[in-house]
This record gives sequence, structure tokens and C-alpha cells, in this order.
Amino acid sequence: MNKKLILHLLGAILLIEALSMAPALAISLIYGDSDWAALLVPMGILTVLGAPPWLLVRSEDKANLRPREGFVTVAFAWILLSVFGALPFVLSGVIPDFTGALFESVSGFTTTGATVIENFDNLPRGIMFWRSFTHWIGGMGVLVLTLALLPKMTGRTSHLMRAESPGPSFSKILPKLGDSAKILYLIYGVLTVLEWVLLMIPGGMNAYDAAIHALGTAGTGGFSNYGLSVGAFDSATVDIIITVFMVLFGTNFALFYRMLIGDWKSVWKSEELRWYLGIYLAATLFISCMIMPQYGGFWHALRYGSFQTATIMSTTGYATANFDLWPQAVRMLMVILMFVGSCAGSTAGGMKVVRVALLFKMGRREIRRTFQPRKVQVVRFEGKGVEESMLMQISSFIIVYMLVILAGAFLISIENTYDFTTNLTAAITAVCNVGPGLGAVGPMGNFAGYTPFSKIALSFLMLCGRLELFPMLALFHPAVWQKG
Amino acid sequence: MNKKLILHLLGAILLIEALSMAPALAISLIYGDSDWAALLVPMGILTVLGAPPWLLVRSEDKANLRPREGFVTVAFAWILLSVFGALPFVLSGVIPDFTGALFESVSGFTTTGATVIENFDNLPRGIMFWRSFTHWIGGMGVLVLTLALLPKMTGRTSHLMRAESPGPSFSKILPKLGDSAKILYLIYGVLTVLEWVLLMIPGGMNAYDAAIHALGTAGTGGFSNYGLSVGAFDSATVDIIITVFMVLFGTNFALFYRMLIGDWKSVWKSEELRWYLGIYLAATLFISCMIMPQYGGFWHALRYGSFQTATIMSTTGYATANFDLWPQAVRMLMVILMFVGSCAGSTAGGMKVVRVALLFKMGRREIRRTFQPRKVQVVRFEGKGVEESMLMQISSFIIVYMLVILAGAFLISIENTYDFTTNLTAAITAVCNVGPGLGAVGPMGNFAGYTPFSKIALSFLMLCGRLELFPMLALFHPAVWQKG
Repeated sequence: MNKKLILHLLGAILLIEALSMAPALAISLIYGDSDWAALLVPMGILTVLGAPPWLLVRSEDKANLRPREGFVTVAFAWILLSVFGALPFVLSGVIPDFTGALFESVSGFTTTGATVIENFDNLPRGIMFWRSFTHWIGGMGVLVLTLALLPKMTGRTSHLMRAESPGPSFSKILPKLGDSAKILYLIYGVLTVLEWVLLMIPGGMNAYDAAIHALGTAGTGGFSNYGLSVGAFDSATVDIIITVFMVLFGTNFALFYRMLIGDWKSVWKSEELRWYLGIYLAATLFISCMIMPQYGGFWHALRYGSFQTATIMSTTGYATANFDLWPQAVRMLMVILMFVGSCAGSTAGGMKVVRVALLFKMGRREIRRTFQPRKVQVVRFEGKGVEESMLMQISSFIIVYMLVILAGAFLISIENTYDFTTNLTAAITAVCNVGPGLGAVGPMGNFAGYTPFSKIALSFLMLCGRLELFPMLALFHPAVWQKG
Repeated sequence: MNKKLILHLLGAILLIEALSMAPALAISLIYGDSDWAALLVPMGILTVLGAPPWLLVRSEDKANLRPREGFVTVAFAWILLSVFGALPFVLSGVIPDFTGALFESVSGFTTTGATVIENFDNLPRGIMFWRSFTHWIGGMGVLVLTLALLPKMTGRTSHLMRAESPGPSFSKILPKLGDSAKILYLIYGVLTVLEWVLLMIPGGMNAYDAAIHALGTAGTGGFSNYGLSVGAFDSATVDIIITVFMVLFGTNFALFYRMLIGDWKSVWKSEELRWYLGIYLAATLFISCMIMPQYGGFWHALRYGSFQTATIMSTTGYATANFDLWPQAVRMLMVILMFVGSCAGSTAGGMKVVRVALLFKMGRREIRRTFQPRKVQVVRFEGKGVEESMLMQISSFIIVYMLVILAGAFLISIENTYDFTTNLTAAITAVCNVGPGLGAVGPMGNFAGYTPFSKIALSFLMLCGRLELFPMLALFHPAVWQKG
């Protein structure tokens, strides 16, 4: 293993995390809350730990990372980020126990948005800003950020970006990785600021609330600083703005780049986008019709139906209504939509629309193959034939995804008394990085009742989901640790 | 399509169903119950409808069936069997509404064992015998029976047997299909009679109860003539006998044949058998430990733990305890074990152990492939490398299996007020052909509360599970109905 380069990268990431706490520290100082020390101390620790390994490597040591090393680096980077990201919660006393704080930190970085905070009154604003800022960092990816900031230092290590970018295949937007990373963060930043402004005018939020909710939407995370989530504002304008941006942040960012350079044709022709919007519109329509009796009118139902469908499909996890109280078919559909998620190359979780679409096509082919065994049938997507090895990889991904969810649901069932629905949907919502599930972890519930063991298991599931399984699972494969 | 041959086969199957009702009629007459007419009338109808198409084909018309025709024949055979098999329930008044009776009939033939009967007092014995006998016919397969009885008439139509025999690959035991079918039914019959005798001595059951429970075990069905299922006997001897036979009937029947011809070596070397027994023993141990506090002692817990694990893995569905009241981790594990099922080539349902084992191996390979993308890795099973096309087929099967379950759970959620746990596990238990689920469809519950639409959906799911998806799903593929 190229230990020097790995340490160098991990050092850089710790320094970036220290830097990431600066906005929260500024907020704390501006509002004069008492939580500034809880941010300053971790920043100091991160700097002291991160600087030496970062300074360790000179440019002559920078060989490329091999895939194995890339995966290990990504896994460790996310674990370290989460552990140090939990410190402000513990030091400020917002979440005094470390496993709870770790859960919150992982939930933030993985853009899950599941919380262990039960009471949202009078929480320090610096800490709450940090909590939401983790969504923003985790949404696009911290290694992508490292590449954007330090393109020369990280060389041609595309494994890093591949491991962190959701979706079955990774396409560089520009020939140079560093340029791609910069473009992605630029689009990301502009959209976030745009939502922030819109949430203030015409949304009517104050600058702080608007920032919290813009960061949570951008990362498709879902942390709110209100117990009632977005429902606390009770404003149709806010609901509509956030619904639109949740759908936007669930879109493949490469398509935004295509729009920027005027290539609208490839946007219209995107098969994944059509599946994504098709599923979203069909589900919204079905759900709005089903909840009409509860909301007394189609338009009112549509407001809540479209928001809740967007929050689940984009895996954000905000709420304006408690869908746990909606009809059974809607609850079941919500769980199915958690699996679907949004587009590859977005900040959202789930299995991704492209995989779900290919899964349907493979199923259809398999049905046909049973009665026409000799006919060669190619699965097509985005107008091209998909290679068999890619289909095999996607099938394996989906199967491992299911296995991880079932194993996780089993593990968190051991130590607590929550029912089947709560435990199963907790595991699903964790792996799919959504946030709420059904039952005790529903949109108006929280994860505080889980035991420390279960919280650690759920944290692992969230990391598995965010990094699309393999970097985390590879840590358990003996061949990763073999010499050579 | 070779319509003549298809009609001929379907005619033969209706005649065989008429014949299959004869033992029940005999029981009815022996006990002098009033239900003989409810059996005699359907027998007459089946004979009148079945004889003409059966007599239609002379030996010169017997070309082979093409795969497409084979699948259509199997699907229609099972639908017809179920529809006519429901008549005795309706005519006797045991289940007056037709959708309920159809559900019961499908549940019988598919060896699911889910029931809509709420009150088991004073039910006519002929009808109840027919109900259990459908398990026995469906367990090994009605087309396999047709091949055993009419080897010359059915020619070399291996598609039929393939479609009905569970597991990813179909291996003929003997070169001639008819001989294989005969051997299978011979082993099946001998084991059933052996269990019947053992349930009387030393089990202490009367001949009728012993027959009902032997038929239900053999087909891994699970219909009992008592509301408390096997728990009604409250006998450790009965529990042990049925546990052993449930495990036996979940074993690949080809292995029994190997034993018969003295080839013990290939039995010991069977990788699927080792996975099957390994999972069974590990799950039994875990569950027995978890329920010890409720049963006050390891041996007592082991009696109930081993029975309930066997009933779920073999997808029989008998009960001696209400596992719905067991700890959450056990309930979760039970649902996972429903998916696993038993060995390929047994009478059991579920995804089959061989597929689950290969799924783990594929997952492991995929983890390794992420960090060693260039290393060629072959998945091995039973000492041989498994072809990639077979792995692809198995992945597609498992994915379609999951899709069917989720779609089914969604469909049955539309019209009723059962909760998420009940609806999801109802769909799982239907597709896996187990019988009980959790919640309202738990071991002490039943399916009577579902609406007619949901009962038809569940019947379709059970048929999908028993025929391993594709014959049923192919009916919806337009290419099946194209000319040529």
C-alpha cells in the first residue's frame, strides 16, 4: 500500500473538515451563542492531527493510488470525518453521549437526515449550522471537494471520485478530474445560494432558517432546526420552492453542465431523467388521489403529496405531513420509492433510477428468455446496448444492497423492542440515506430510542448506502489487507 | 402453437384432478359425512370437460412442445387445477364465496398453506382431506405426475417438468423423463406413508389426523384440520416427527435417489445440503437461545425453536407456537428464512438454498472486484465453476422475485386497512409459499380479512412462487401470444 499518499490524503481531509467548521463558528460568534468553544476545540484538534501527514508527502511521492488503496482511503476518510464531526455535538452538550453524536454526524455526512435530537427548543445556532453543513459537504462528496481544492496534489486518482460518486458508472464531465470536481461544486454552490435567496424572498424565512433548509435540500439530507421540519413554516410558497429544489438536486449534475454549455438536446434525450420524472409524477398523482379524503380537495392534497413524494424519492427526508398516518398503500409505496431514490450523479441516495430502470429491463428480458431461450436479447439504455458485465455488476449491487438491509434490520432488532415495521424501515431508510421510516422512526419520530449498539449498526448502514456499499464492505474482505 | 397437444395435456390434467378427488370421496363415504356430493359433482364436471380434449390427440400428433408452449401449458394447468379445486369448498359451504375458495385451492396446490377458514369445528372430513391432498399433488407437481402416469403420451417434453421443478437448474435423475418422474413419486409416496405410520405409532394420532398432517408435511404445505395447527396435539413426539420430516421434505429428492442406489458419497459432498443444514442448525440455535426466557429452559425452547425454524425454512407453515409473539430479532429472522426456503428439487418454496448460497458468493466476488477489477474470479458451487450466464439468470430471478413481492405488497395494501407488517409479510409468505406471516396473518391468524381483489392478487403471488415466476409472468408478455 502507498501508505504515505493515503496518510497525506487523510490529513488533507481532516484540514478540510477543520475549514468546514469555520462558517458554523462564524455563525456562533455572530449570534453570540455559547457554543463557539465546542466548534473551536475540534477545529484545533483537526488541524493538529491533519497538518503533519499532509505535510509528509512531497510531490515526488505522488504515484497513483491503486483501486484497493482508493477504496480504503475513501472508507477511512468518511469514518474519520464522522468521528471528528461528532465532537461539536458532544462538547456543546446538544448530544452528550458519543454514539448518539456519532449517529448524528454520520447521518449528516451521508445526507440521511435521521436524528437522535428529541427537543429542538433553544439549540445553539452554531452547532445546528454545523449539523446542516455536514449535509452540504457529504452531498457532493468530501473527496470530490479535495480534488476541487487540490487538483495537483491528488494526481489522477479517479478511484477516489468514482467511489464517492453515486451511480453504476462514473463519467467525467471534463477531461481533467480536478476541473470536473470544480464544475460540480460550482453548480452545487450556485443552486444552493439560489434556493437560500428564494427561501428568504418570496419564502419569508429569516437568513439563518433559509440557510439551514437550503443546505439540507442541496445535500438531499433533511436536517431541520424545527421539530416539525418544513411543516413548521406552514407556507405553500416554502413547500413549493423546496419541492422544486428537492427534485432538482435529485437530478444528475452532469445534465446541469450540459444545460450550461447549451446542449439541451442531450438533456431532453436523457432516458434516466425521463424515468425519474415519470416515476415522480405518477407517484405524486397516485398519492395525492389517495390522500384527498384526508385533505379535502385535490390541490391541497397535491401540495402535500408532491412534497412528500419529492422528499422520499430525493431521499431528503424533510416533512410537511406525517405520511405514517396516510393510507396503507401510500406507506407501502413510500418504502418502495425509498429504494428507487433519484438519478445517478446527484446528491441523493437510494439504488438510483438508472439501476431500477435496468432492473426492470433485465426482468423483462429474463421473462422472455424463458420461452425464447435461444434469442439473443440486448438490454438498451440511453440508446445504447448495455454490456453484460455492467448488468452483472448492477444485479450484484442490488442483491448486496438487499442483503445489507436485511442483515442490518436483523442486527438492530436484537437489542430493542421496536416492532418489525420500525426496524425494517429504519434499516431501509438508513441504507437509502432517506431519514424517516415508518412507525417509531416515522417523519415525526426519531432514532433516540435505539441502543448504542443499534446506533453504531445504523451508522454503518448509512455509510454503506452513501458510498454505495463496496468501500465499506471491502474493509471486511481479507484480500484488502494482504501485502503487495 | 401446438394447440392440439396443449389441449390434450390440459384434458389429462383435469382427468387426473378428478381422480385425485377419489380418496377424499372415499373418506367422506367412510365417515358418512354429508359432503360427498360436493366432491362427486366436481369429479363429474372434470371428467366431462377433460375427456374430450384428452381423446382428441392420436399418437401421430405428438410433436414436442416448444418452450413457449410448455410454459403456457404449465401456467394454464395450474390455473385450471385451482379453479376446479375450489369447487368442493364452495359446494360444501365450507367457504361459500368463490374468491375465498379459490384462494384456499391455490394455497393448497402451491403448498402455501395460508387459509381463509376461521372456525375449524365440525368441518366435513372429505372436504378437509381434499384440502390437504392438494398439498400432496402440488408439492411434487401435477405435470410431473402426468409424466409418471402417461410417459408415452407426453413424449420428450422436458420443459413441463423443468417449469414445475423448483431450483435454478433441472437435472434428470434417470435418462428417461417418465422414469425420473416415477422414481420421484415413489420416494415421495414412501416417505409420506412412513410419516403417516409414525404419526399414529408412536405419535398417537388417529389415522385421519395422521393422514392430514403427513400430506401437509410431504407437500411442505401446512394445512391442518385444527385451528391450533400441530400445537393442538401438544405432544413432543409429534413435534419431533414432524420437525424431522419437514427437514427431510426440504431436501433435494435427487439426494434420496442417490442414497437409494448406495451413492452416499455424493450426498455427503452436496454443498447445497451442507448450506441447508448449516443455516437450519444455526438459526435453530439462535432462536432457541432467544426464546429461552419465554420457555424456561433450553430443551423446552429447543423443541419449539427447532419446529418453528423447520416449518419456516421448509415453507410448510405448521405451528406449535405463535412466533409472532417472539422477540423482534426472531421475527425478523423468520422473515429472512422465508426467503431462503429449502433445497432445489424439494417440495418446498422460497428462493432455494442454492440460489442464496450463490448470491452470497456473487456478493463476495463483487466486493473483491471493486478493488481488484482485473482479477478473473470464478464462482464455484458443488466443486465446479458456475457459468456466468447461470449467475446472471439467478440474479435476474432474485431481482424479479423481490419486484413481485413489492408489487404484490403494494397491490394488497390498496383495499384494506391491515398494517405495513401484515401486508408485506403476507406478500412474502405468499410468494415464498410458506403460509403464515406476521401481524394479522401470523401463525394464529388467517387471510379471511382480505378483500376479494387482494385474495386474487395473493393467489397470483402464490402461483408465481410455486412455478418460480416465469410461467406466470410470461402470460403477460406480448411475445408469448404472437403467432408462429
